Amino acid sequence: MEPPLLDLDLGLDAAELTARLVDIPSVSGSEKPLADAVESALRALPWLRVDRHGNNVVARTALGRPERVVLAGHLDTVPIAGNVPSRRDADGVLWGCGSGDMKAGVAVQLRIAATVHRPDRDVTFVFYDNEEVEAERNGLGHLAAAHPDWLAGDFAVLLEPTGGEVEGGCQGTLRMLLRLPGQRAHSARSWMGGNAIHAAAPVLARLAGYRPRRPVIDGLEYREGLNAVRIEGGVAGNVIPDECTVTVNYRYAPDRSAEEAVAHVREVFDGCGVAAFVVDDHSPGALPGLSHPAARAFMAAVGGLPRPKFGWTDVSRFSALGVPAVNYGPGDPDLAHRRDERVDTAVILRCEERLRGWLTGAEPPEGAAG
Amino acid sequence: MEPPLLDLDLGLDAAELTARLVDIPSVSGSEKPLADAVESALRALPWLRVDRHGNNVVARTALGRPERVVLAGHLDTVPIAGNVPSRRDADGVLWGCGSGDMKAGVAVQLRIAATVHRPDRDVTFVFYDNEEVEAERNGLGHLAAAHPDWLAGDFAVLLEPTGGEVEGGCQGTLRMLLRLPGQRAHSARSWMGGNAIHAAAPVLARLAGYRPRRPVIDGLEYREGLNAVRIEGGVAGNVIPDECTVTVNYRYAPDRSAEEAVAHVREVFDGCGVAAFVVDDHSPGALPGLSHPAARAFMAAVGGLPRPKFGWTDVSRFSALGVPAVNYGPGDPDLAHRRDERVDTAVILRCEERLRGWLTGAEPPEGAAG
Repeated sequence: MEPPLLDLDLGLDAAELTARLVDIPSVSGSEKPLADAVESALRALPWLRVDRHGNNVVARTALGRPERVVLAGHLDTVPIAGNVPSRRDADGVLWGCGSGDMKAGVAVQLRIAATVHRPDRDVTFVFYDNEEVEAERNGLGHLAAAHPDWLAGDFAVLLEPTGGEVEGGCQGTLRMLLRLPGQRAHSARSWMGGNAIHAAAPVLARLAGYRPRRPVIDGLEYREGLNAVRIEGGVAGNVIPDECTVTVNYRYAPDRSAEEAVAHVREVFDGCGVAAFVVDDHSPGALPGLSHPAARAFMAAVGGLPRPKFGWTDVSRFSALGVPAVNYGPGDPDLAHRRDERVDTAVILRCEERLRGWLTGAEPPEGAAG
Repeated sequence: MEPPLLDLDLGLDAAELTARLVDIPSVSGSEKPLADAVESALRALPWLRVDRHGNNVVARTALGRPERVVLAGHLDTVPIAGNVPSRRDADGVLWGCGSGDMKAGVAVQLRIAATVHRPDRDVTFVFYDNEEVEAERNGLGHLAAAHPDWLAGDFAVLLEPTGGEVEGGCQGTLRMLLRLPGQRAHSARSWMGGNAIHAAAPVLARLAGYRPRRPVIDGLEYREGLNAVRIEGGVAGNVIPDECTVTVNYRYAPDRSAEEAVAHVREVFDGCGVAAFVVDDHSPGALPGLSHPAARAFMAAVGGLPRPKFGWTDVSRFSALGVPAVNYGPGDPDLAHRRDERVDTAVILRCEERLRGWLTGAEPPEGAAG
């Protein structure tokens, strides 16, 4: 028997709605009841077209505006740790699993969907599953593969917790294996062999002397890094090893393409005697896209100074579809995934108000800042 | 019930006796029947005092000679691989497990014990167990710990297979762990950490540029080596590692003591930022001792030019007791431990004849060579 459909009252304010969302458990892989409730609530709004793929729900206005923007958020949480149901304390802080990461953001999305009937830009709302687990299960990735047209737009905002500041784009991450050659021999007769670990000396010297770039893109200063994250070599305690592998991780600013990143790593180690370069893992970066008019209007509406995002995030999936994206949402990222996860309800309400202002052309409030 | 005592006829020639020894299985840990047979045969020789410790048997003349020499060999073999019982082919080659390593040598020891009643040097015969397995089980090591007086002497010959050439002394082997320091951080913010793998760069550079010594000792040229035999570092694909360990193996000539070897390794890596040096394994070398009169007489008797021994062998256990030692025995070391292990019976007989000549003052034969 299907469980009864849970009812979401979009007439609640975003803080109350967040509490309601926290009380519907949705640990990664178990998002269906929440996805059903979200879909049902959205289908009650006649100005939206609603589509579903698995436990991913997409709702769109179709007003024929010259610009379309995307508000996206994930429905899932990390495992519950005795922190459901939610509770709100006397200071207006809401506690509970996923409160900041990112049911507060989802509540803001739902409130905008329910209250902004005629936005001055077309808006797409994306709710997806499995963000907190391995990349191949990520619902946004599944949507991008199956229905890229549902994600089309000029600019996207992921409502991940950023402490109310805008984090633009993200850096790419490339992991490559560098194999060094050698020839095995007994260590009592080492002159008969070639030591692959010794052959790694110039590779480590290049790494130790590497000076990473700090490029400025759309006014944001990124910081690259090129690091060994693993080294392995050795056969036995009395054998000259014939193989040594250095795994390097290149974190690169989004002005560099995936191909340029691979070429750069090869170039750094040119002449070091590397026998083979193998790409182990690669996720390109995402440009902040802050020069786009929709992004400028967004920055004017939400206020504050954008920061670069050093880590890799789902904004890169939008970037891969040609949609510049930023992270902006209520909640403190440092509290995410913790037993004492919580969110200040005042920040939820402010976030809702600013996004509404952006989409309805309202003037930003005095001294707008996250 | 005890199995019946196996009879060893020491009236057989050394080649026939080798065949008999191969036919008494004595894989490491199962030497008792062979040790019993050896002990029993030696006790029948009234000019020898016989002692036993576990499955180790020691027999000694006590003629009051000014010099004492030791002939030593191990009773055990590697596991049998369908190559027992022995067989002798038309070319006089004897096939079988342990034929060369080293039942041919043991047969020579037994023949000398049985036929040289009044050697012109006192002689100690040592038969020991567990040479083919881990060092802590080695019977010669057990004897050295429990009864060092049984092993006393001016010079020792281990009858390991050397292809009939004298291999003098042996090099020491020291394995040390070098730990490099670091500070863990997310690789997207590598500037927050310190990379322990990068910190290994100067260590590998020193290794790559190291020039090993080739000292000449008693006319033998040794060849040292200092090599990384293992390197390990890394926490996860997105973490700046806070530890990296390089394991180095220093093979050193026997003019250097154990303490000098450790000090040398520390000195080589001085200024490389190594956080800790840890001795993992250490077996000092053995001087060839070829300048001793007993050794000179031995070289004159067996003929040929001695070679240095680069690998570590049990001669070092004698050296630790103050007894210079060499390897010299019938059998091709390259055939040891193989299914097709075999030994030329002519070489067994020649080896017996030369050792008898050494111990009885007989002139070496014309053109004496292995």
